[in-house]
Amino acid sequence: MSELEKTVRVELGDRSYDILIGPGLIARAGSEIAARLKGKRMAVITDDHVGARYLEPLTASLGEAGISVFPLTLPAGEKTKSFDPLIKACDHVLEAKIERNDAVIALGGGVIGDLTGFAAGIVRRGTRFIQIPTSLLAQVDSSVGGKTGINSRHGKNLIGVFHQPDLVLADTDVLDTLSPREFRAGYAEVAKYGLIDKPDFFEWLEKNWRAVFEGGAARIEAIAISCQAKADVVAEDERENGRRALLNLGHTFGHALEAATQYDSARLVHGEGVSIGMVLAHQFSARMNLASPDLGRRVEKHLREVGLPVTMGEIPGGLPPAEVLLEAITQDKKVKGGKLTFILTRGLGQSFVADDVPASEVLSFLREKLEG
Amino acid sequence: MSELEKTVRVELGDRSYDILIGPGLIARAGSEIAARLKGKRMAVITDDHVGARYLEPLTASLGEAGISVFPLTLPAGEKTKSFDPLIKACDHVLEAKIERNDAVIALGGGVIGDLTGFAAGIVRRGTRFIQIPTSLLAQVDSSVGGKTGINSRHGKNLIGVFHQPDLVLADTDVLDTLSPREFRAGYAEVAKYGLIDKPDFFEWLEKNWRAVFEGGAARIEAIAISCQAKADVVAEDERENGRRALLNLGHTFGHALEAATQYDSARLVHGEGVSIGMVLAHQFSARMNLASPDLGRRVEKHLREVGLPVTMGEIPGGLPPAEVLLEAITQDKKVKGGKLTFILTRGLGQSFVADDVPASEVLSFLREKLEG
Repeated sequence: MSELEKTVRVELGDRSYDILIGPGLIARAGSEIAARLKGKRMAVITDDHVGARYLEPLTASLGEAGISVFPLTLPAGEKTKSFDPLIKACDHVLEAKIERNDAVIALGGGVIGDLTGFAAGIVRRGTRFIQIPTSLLAQVDSSVGGKTGINSRHGKNLIGVFHQPDLVLADTDVLDTLSPREFRAGYAEVAKYGLIDKPDFFEWLEKNWRAVFEGGAARIEAIAISCQAKADVVAEDERENGRRALLNLGHTFGHALEAATQYDSARLVHGEGVSIGMVLAHQFSARMNLASPDLGRRVEKHLREVGLPVTMGEIPGGLPPAEVLLEAITQDKKVKGGKLTFILTRGLGQSFVADDVPASEVLSFLREKLEG
Repeated sequence: MSELEKTVRVELGDRSYDILIGPGLIARAGSEIAARLKGKRMAVITDDHVGARYLEPLTASLGEAGISVFPLTLPAGEKTKSFDPLIKACDHVLEAKIERNDAVIALGGGVIGDLTGFAAGIVRRGTRFIQIPTSLLAQVDSSVGGKTGINSRHGKNLIGVFHQPDLVLADTDVLDTLSPREFRAGYAEVAKYGLIDKPDFFEWLEKNWRAVFEGGAARIEAIAISCQAKADVVAEDERENGRRALLNLGHTFGHALEAATQYDSARLVHGEGVSIGMVLAHQFSARMNLASPDLGRRVEKHLREVGLPVTMGEIPGGLPPAEVLLEAITQDKKVKGGKLTFILTRGLGQSFVADDVPASEVLSFLREKLEG
């Protein structure tokens, strides 16, 4: 084990698990898994991009630990989060005869993690599951907390289960091969944990973000703090009946922007939507006299500095009118008495769930921002 | 509410729910549901046989309670427990905009209940769910306990989730329209609860089975005792880590016989397989010197008396050799040191989980029984 390695524990009673964060974890996956699980058969589900690079070293490492690997490679991309690949994945896990002590391993980013977790959650009504996230976004967000699922023509992530992994191996070496744009998109979720309730962490990021982007100890530290933040929220509210909703800071506006750009990653990826969404949430909080306009400017400045988009105007190809964005926000639900739920803030790292936001205010705010 | 009506409570903490058992419950469904759930939108999933008879009265009853109904009718039969109908069901629930306080209703037998429960379990990672079971088998077994799922080419019920209903309405009037063969098949599961751990109930059935078949108070009593028995086991061991396995009495042999007859319901339905399987389990227990051979004869006598098949020889079309049946029992799993898990018995109503049954003993037992 590397000196740099950190372990975060997700406390969920008899379903508690470790997140290991550090360099070289794929090469060491076999021994880390064998130390925790008795099974000798593992189905590995990956995509053609990630698999080309990491399936061989992972298989070798598992082989050294006496574990037989049954790999399935799916096409990379968001379209893989749908029923056809899910059926393929389920069939593969059954074909591989994965039994009670064996496991299904997700090797990839958020798409592979969400799909594989869903398959593991429904084969034999729940099969052991290991996450090996290979994007920054997956390492600090989607691989932790047990939300799994696929998209529907009615919207993203509408079909799925809660299914916690038995282990998460976040190999920080793999982040060196991400494109700068992809790394930045994941960084938006890192900054989010500071903005939710860790003002010191956000200040630390303002000073040290270059070191986080460069790699090494600062990057591992930032990932560990992010995972710990998410682990704490999940331990308290696994099924999102309350506090877990805070993790959606920036996501209500962000999802609407993703929908408005038809989920076209050439125009906007999830983390970029979250970046713009977090700035909008802070600006809207100022408009509602909850927080100072200076705070919005400060958040905007930091995210712009790391290279993330921070205004709707930066999205290439233009956006629909405010009414359409509001419709995407309400997702066709009947808005109860014209009130919406947003994550807003009262100050740096003082986010809260506001469930009485007037839709009319959101509409005029969006109009102004689209014009400005 | 009818004087005959009984309520069984399934105790699962904040997921506890009621099973109402009695006449006229479909006609009264609207008020029973409105008394418990706030939602005003319900998706009803049924099959073409059951729907033709009961969808209209159910819709009328829900309408009187101010509940809008969004019905989906699927083809009757085991083939509906597969991915294509599941996708249709999920899409239907999303299309109907079933939200947090609304619910998905299963109106049908075991197939519809298992499929609908699975869809409810995965749409938005879990939607409220109501069972209106219309076969005796579904009323006393599959609608209680939260096991949901579909079949795979690798075997039955291999893909699914645990998802407990919010309410079960077992309308005993609908049983009058079942064929005698279908009623008998459900009765095998009723008798099972006596044989697991309720010797008094089995003795009562020996004396009163004709009244149970005729309907009225005795039938409601038998269904209520069965539901209570299952509810008690589920409350203690929801996820089948231990005691819940007792519910598989007769099912290990039974499933092998269903597989050996290609799940052809003209030859063998599930409850008939369970009937023969329970007799075999008692005979095998005697062979292992666990129970008296008289007990096996007593169980066989009662099940034969009600009209159920009790020997493998009664299955039309012939069976494969013992080796093939054993293979179906082991389901291609590597048999650990030649040991299998069976539910065996030490006496009337004294079933237990035996996890060290020698495969060789099962093989010679099956050979003798196939010859005899």
